[in-house]
Amino acid sequence: MINVAVLGHGVVGSGVVEVIETNAKDIAKRCGKTLNVKHILDIREFNDLPYANKFTKDFNVILNDESVKVVAEVMGGVNPAYDFVKACLEAKKSVVTSNKELVAAKGAELLKIANENNVNFFFEASVGGGIPIIRPMHQCLAANKIDEVAGILNGTTNFILTKMIHEQMDFAEALKLAQDLGYAERNPEADVEGHDACRKICILASLAYGRHVYPQNVYTEGITKITLNDVEYADHYNHVIKLIGRAKLLDNGKLMIMVSPALIKKSSQLASIDDVFNGVLVKGNAVGDVVFYGKGAGKLPTASAVVADIIDAVKADATSVSLVWEDSSENIVESKDNYSCRFYARAVFGFDCASLSAIKSVFGDVEAINTDIENQNEIAFVTNNMTEAEFEQKVSVLFENGVKVVSKIRVLEY
Amino acid sequence: MINVAVLGHGVVGSGVVEVIETNAKDIAKRCGKTLNVKHILDIREFNDLPYANKFTKDFNVILNDESVKVVAEVMGGVNPAYDFVKACLEAKKSVVTSNKELVAAKGAELLKIANENNVNFFFEASVGGGIPIIRPMHQCLAANKIDEVAGILNGTTNFILTKMIHEQMDFAEALKLAQDLGYAERNPEADVEGHDACRKICILASLAYGRHVYPQNVYTEGITKITLNDVEYADHYNHVIKLIGRAKLLDNGKLMIMVSPALIKKSSQLASIDDVFNGVLVKGNAVGDVVFYGKGAGKLPTASAVVADIIDAVKADATSVSLVWEDSSENIVESKDNYSCRFYARAVFGFDCASLSAIKSVFGDVEAINTDIENQNEIAFVTNNMTEAEFEQKVSVLFENGVKVVSKIRVLEY
Repeated sequence: MINVAVLGHGVVGSGVVEVIETNAKDIAKRCGKTLNVKHILDIREFNDLPYANKFTKDFNVILNDESVKVVAEVMGGVNPAYDFVKACLEAKKSVVTSNKELVAAKGAELLKIANENNVNFFFEASVGGGIPIIRPMHQCLAANKIDEVAGILNGTTNFILTKMIHEQMDFAEALKLAQDLGYAERNPEADVEGHDACRKICILASLAYGRHVYPQNVYTEGITKITLNDVEYADHYNHVIKLIGRAKLLDNGKLMIMVSPALIKKSSQLASIDDVFNGVLVKGNAVGDVVFYGKGAGKLPTASAVVADIIDAVKADATSVSLVWEDSSENIVESKDNYSCRFYARAVFGFDCASLSAIKSVFGDVEAINTDIENQNEIAFVTNNMTEAEFEQKVSVLFENGVKVVSKIRVLEY
Repeated sequence: MINVAVLGHGVVGSGVVEVIETNAKDIAKRCGKTLNVKHILDIREFNDLPYANKFTKDFNVILNDESVKVVAEVMGGVNPAYDFVKACLEAKKSVVTSNKELVAAKGAELLKIANENNVNFFFEASVGGGIPIIRPMHQCLAANKIDEVAGILNGTTNFILTKMIHEQMDFAEALKLAQDLGYAERNPEADVEGHDACRKICILASLAYGRHVYPQNVYTEGITKITLNDVEYADHYNHVIKLIGRAKLLDNGKLMIMVSPALIKKSSQLASIDDVFNGVLVKGNAVGDVVFYGKGAGKLPTASAVVADIIDAVKADATSVSLVWEDSSENIVESKDNYSCRFYARAVFGFDCASLSAIKSVFGDVEAINTDIENQNEIAFVTNNMTEAEFEQKVSVLFENGVKVVSKIRVLEY
């Protein structure tokens, strides 16, 4: 029997306890040992639960209990999670976590500490909820040079975009529905501004390229400015709009990494990922494209990944020396100005009716998107491939000519 | 440095050598050691290759070389692969394989031998080529009771069906194209009759449910009888036809397992898996639905999975005691008669013009599919849920009434 402790009894924490109990028999078979939740740390009272006696408000009870071999940190946030996780690793307890904020901020350091103490720090649940992605990337694709990682990494924004695409709700309406259904927080900023997706692509990039990528160095754009007109233009162009996190190693050794809405071809595997589902595309130089798809959040899916990590920590004889990435004090992220792609733009005309020739005189040969949207003063178009800097420069010239670009969305090929 | 041997220098074998060479640096980092291909077993001559000196025709050279720690078996077929793999495991060498025929026939036994000798027998490449699926199911979903596994497991048939669906090629024409492109063998039986998919669903079912499922106990139906009319009816019904392998644990402890063409809703994640791509859907009681997608065959994708297994075998300190399944001399497969689903059927009328009422008098309330197909003597319809036995019995009654069912395809909800 292996004693584990759970830090935090919120949605995920209570799910971890539930999964360990419900699937005890299957877990024992796969783990070789039965799991026993010995302590649960939470400052709240849970006197009505059948396992009320397991709760403690004192972290030291867990830290000083030598019989506890694995600790699941599911509190979220960097503080006090970071101090707790560090202390546990130093006390030679393996730690598993669903906390993407912690891993994105402190992953390199915590992996190093785990290594030094011959225990493990696992975080499968920090990206894609229950979808196996961290371990498949680290283990199953170990024979590959990872060319690129890209994905729909946030279920809340994907739900909102799905409602905008398939039910013509506008952003505010879809956000309200997501909040009513419990998919979005009252303060939805971390989701809708892309910060959550940013933490996840940073974790995937760190794993793929072996150096810690910090969220604050990554250009991040949310979905709050997407309009139903954009959605409709995209549809006529046979694309859908998705919030995409992506990372790619450039020839100069720096990293192209960004979170932003993007137009994706309808035939792409990523385009059919709807509602709260997530999907991650990994391009390996041997395996080609592989996609992992499933529920990116939620109590039991996330708990499923946390408990799988607990099982792996129990089964591991030693620390995983290959699951490490270097800390990098230098910024390894290439300037966004130098990324290139095609751009979708929606332009309005100040004094004149819409004129494609005005746009073409600046952007060269663009593809105009014809729709039923009746607005003589608006044109949507897709440019050729160009850098972000080139695009912005052309937008400035266009503005001087009386044409204002009110919408700009990257067009990506996946 | 770790010495490995490769048994077989065909498509996959040469890919294994190539991947180990091309990605040597990344592999060394993830593996902690460099890999050295010391011997390659093949009866053919490869004198022109830069590594011609590594070839041997004598298996004993490999078996008796104590410096060889891991052997990759990529010859295919049960004999002599089985004898070679068994001998290697007994000589305390770990073995990794891409050979689905071998794993489906002898998996339980070889895993047991590996266990007894404290080495590993890995077979990630045997299902889904390079797509991580075996390890994610075994490790990342370890906290789940697996409710069901279903997937598109054969790239050749999926390519043929894709051409039938999107380019209106008939079966013979699409098969010829697949052969010309090297996707199908000259003798395409193992693919088009579903035997290859059958082996793979047997491996997945054995892994998910812990008992060996033998291919000969699994009802298997290929795609040779699918007509363009069926494809068109399915399209009008908003479905596509895919070859699906599926396995599910029933309440009575027996297994529902089958390979057959199936109508799948266009909005399903499995419906958008086209061309030679494979996709596997796993339903876990905690994680919900997860889908793994990628190239299910090919030199480098398959080699990618073989080499990942080599890396894991090198990293493993001991045998994986959890990666085992019991051999079962009894047949654990439930009689096909008792499986139930909705059925698509195409019926022709012997002496009369098509009459839905004749069909309804036997099948009750069916859904007729209206299309532009001009054939007054033919009706396509979808039944309610019923068992296979009930369906067959109703087909007999219909036949006595002068209506012949010429096409029968299961309608599955994924």
